[in-house]
Amino acid sequence: MAKMNPGFLNLKKSYLFIEIGRRVKEYMTAHPDNRVIRMGIGDVTQPLAPVVVEAMKKAADEMGVKETFRGYEDSGLGYDFLREAIAGYYKSYGVELPLDEILVSDGAKSDCGNIGDIFSADNSVIVTDPAYPVYVDSNVMGGREVQYVNSTEENGFAAMPDENMQAGGLIYLCSPNNPTGSVYTKEQLKVWVDYAIKTKSIIIFDAAYEAFISDPDLPRSIFEIEGARKCAVEICSLSKTAGFTGTRCGYTIVPKELMIEAPDGTEMSVHQLWTRRQGSKFNGVSYPVQRAAEAVFTPEGLKQTRETIAYYMQNAKVMADTFDELGIKYTGGKNSPYIWFKCPDGMDSWTFFDKLLNEAEIVGTPGEGFGKNGDGWFRLTAFGTHENTTEAMARIKALLKK
Amino acid sequence: MAKMNPGFLNLKKSYLFIEIGRRVKEYMTAHPDNRVIRMGIGDVTQPLAPVVVEAMKKAADEMGVKETFRGYEDSGLGYDFLREAIAGYYKSYGVELPLDEILVSDGAKSDCGNIGDIFSADNSVIVTDPAYPVYVDSNVMGGREVQYVNSTEENGFAAMPDENMQAGGLIYLCSPNNPTGSVYTKEQLKVWVDYAIKTKSIIIFDAAYEAFISDPDLPRSIFEIEGARKCAVEICSLSKTAGFTGTRCGYTIVPKELMIEAPDGTEMSVHQLWTRRQGSKFNGVSYPVQRAAEAVFTPEGLKQTRETIAYYMQNAKVMADTFDELGIKYTGGKNSPYIWFKCPDGMDSWTFFDKLLNEAEIVGTPGEGFGKNGDGWFRLTAFGTHENTTEAMARIKALLKK
Repeated sequence: MAKMNPGFLNLKKSYLFIEIGRRVKEYMTAHPDNRVIRMGIGDVTQPLAPVVVEAMKKAADEMGVKETFRGYEDSGLGYDFLREAIAGYYKSYGVELPLDEILVSDGAKSDCGNIGDIFSADNSVIVTDPAYPVYVDSNVMGGREVQYVNSTEENGFAAMPDENMQAGGLIYLCSPNNPTGSVYTKEQLKVWVDYAIKTKSIIIFDAAYEAFISDPDLPRSIFEIEGARKCAVEICSLSKTAGFTGTRCGYTIVPKELMIEAPDGTEMSVHQLWTRRQGSKFNGVSYPVQRAAEAVFTPEGLKQTRETIAYYMQNAKVMADTFDELGIKYTGGKNSPYIWFKCPDGMDSWTFFDKLLNEAEIVGTPGEGFGKNGDGWFRLTAFGTHENTTEAMARIKALLKK
Repeated sequence: MAKMNPGFLNLKKSYLFIEIGRRVKEYMTAHPDNRVIRMGIGDVTQPLAPVVVEAMKKAADEMGVKETFRGYEDSGLGYDFLREAIAGYYKSYGVELPLDEILVSDGAKSDCGNIGDIFSADNSVIVTDPAYPVYVDSNVMGGREVQYVNSTEENGFAAMPDENMQAGGLIYLCSPNNPTGSVYTKEQLKVWVDYAIKTKSIIIFDAAYEAFISDPDLPRSIFEIEGARKCAVEICSLSKTAGFTGTRCGYTIVPKELMIEAPDGTEMSVHQLWTRRQGSKFNGVSYPVQRAAEAVFTPEGLKQTRETIAYYMQNAKVMADTFDELGIKYTGGKNSPYIWFKCPDGMDSWTFFDKLLNEAEIVGTPGEGFGKNGDGWFRLTAFGTHENTTEAMARIKALLKK
């Protein structure tokens, strides 16, 4: 009989956001008239920027005309126009990238998951706890054992290399961090880069929230750190940068000097493996979506998308002010669209999830869903509307001041 | 040191279409003034249908307005509006599908490649030879050994179960076939379905070319065959149906009664495994692309896309007439956009590729790129323009009548 991948049996029973969706649906079915505010899934609420919409429509028109129609992309790894736009964006904060190191995809989640294909099952994998569940789930599916390095209140939820780690495989880092909102400094990232080089590990750096960094001293890209080209891959996305959660476009940067061990002890190019993986199992991103993505990086596109980011960061400020006022400990809210706060009265995070849903009709994300160190902590996103965010904070004040 | 997936070392050195691209580029660099006609990569040339373009533009506009903006899809597995459209299409030729068995993706290539994630490395894999390279490459990457069943001139390039096969794992079938253009009859598919049930195998049925079937007696879907719901998954795409090669949308049908063996000998639902894989490593198809896909299945969309298919099938007829006139043996050209013909004078297929490129400036696909039984055979596609197809056939006549 055909046999399943046994790795799937080691997954936690239900994907975090599916479980949240289930509980919310149950609540709403029981209380159809109530007004639930969703601050759980990290989804955005503001529309695409006008230049982005126009670019997509123009490209759709091109697809309807024989002379300008586009079929398969030659490479399937991103049109040069988009790679140039992305390279220009990186250059604006000092990172020079050859175009062919920029590999376009349908989103960071796909790349985070699919990149596991190029690694053997016996790599060590280091994931911070708490972390975005895809890092763990994709490695568990790939038969790899995951070791955790602790992000805790003590280290400001910014995990650093740990002497107990069995390194020499993969290391997943995310900064600004989902879920904790913490941001690595250049000095901290340099420690990780040095550690990866020393242990011959590969850092998978998730930069999905880089656009929320306003402090010019904080690194937006791991490639701002010396040595990173020898030990890191960077995955980024337009989901949060430009509201592409439903439009779908991301990119992965793979330096050509990044090497990995082959079974015979020689070294292979990671760039070559990833392009081969994508060449065999992926066929490129929709042309109109790539044109929409290109528009994000035009001067007008940057202006419009930054206005939206400022809007969300205004929400973050309202939230941070609320927790300051309540005297509740939190990270994030600056240089990050997430607020990560300590559940009151020592509650565990799913208990607090149910309390917040039932008593304040607010959906958040229980920290425990991101790992054991998340228990007792809770994530709220700044991606709502001003109205909902303000209303939610008023409800939280009423609930927690009781 | 981080270790690569050793499966990649077992891949053939270069992906077929990349090698073709390399040779064509080399030729064109040496002969910049010449006029090469591309009939190699199975890419389309006709624009998207007007209703499809309009639907995409309308959806892009919705994305630019707060009230109608769409972020993450709840499931990431396809909006109901598109699943309903696909279900309606299947129903039009007699196949009833519950909506949640229709799983939308960014294309058949992604699904063909990614579905390997849910299977263990020790499954037997049966692939017809010749076949679309993704079936083999994705399994080789997954560490699975591939057995071949022969498609040959003798069986009309429609491989049937073979007594020597070690079955009981995965079986990849494609009908109408890429590259040979052969189409399984209902009786032939029934033999495969019975065989899969008997050996407890799972058929991965690639129906990417179903829209080219005009003979009402030929099956468009494996689910027209009794028993298929117990043993098959069907992967389909709008790439050829509606010219979505650069727009990217496909879908996979996974019946809920389809089971697979778990390590403890119990049975697991394939539907559950695939939705979990997609839930963890994929985040849905771009909303405007899903609206564009929905438009394909409207009465006006079907009318417009069928006109384009008729245009391509007119090309196929011109090609078939040419090979008839030359007395060259071929399959396909009816119910299929591919013509698969025997290389003249016993030439091997890469030699004929170079001859056709150098002496007639036509790019085709050497059959050997699809497997050893493809050697001595050659694939041409009907996806060009009338002008180019007619011109190419004139050149082939001039070349081969010499």
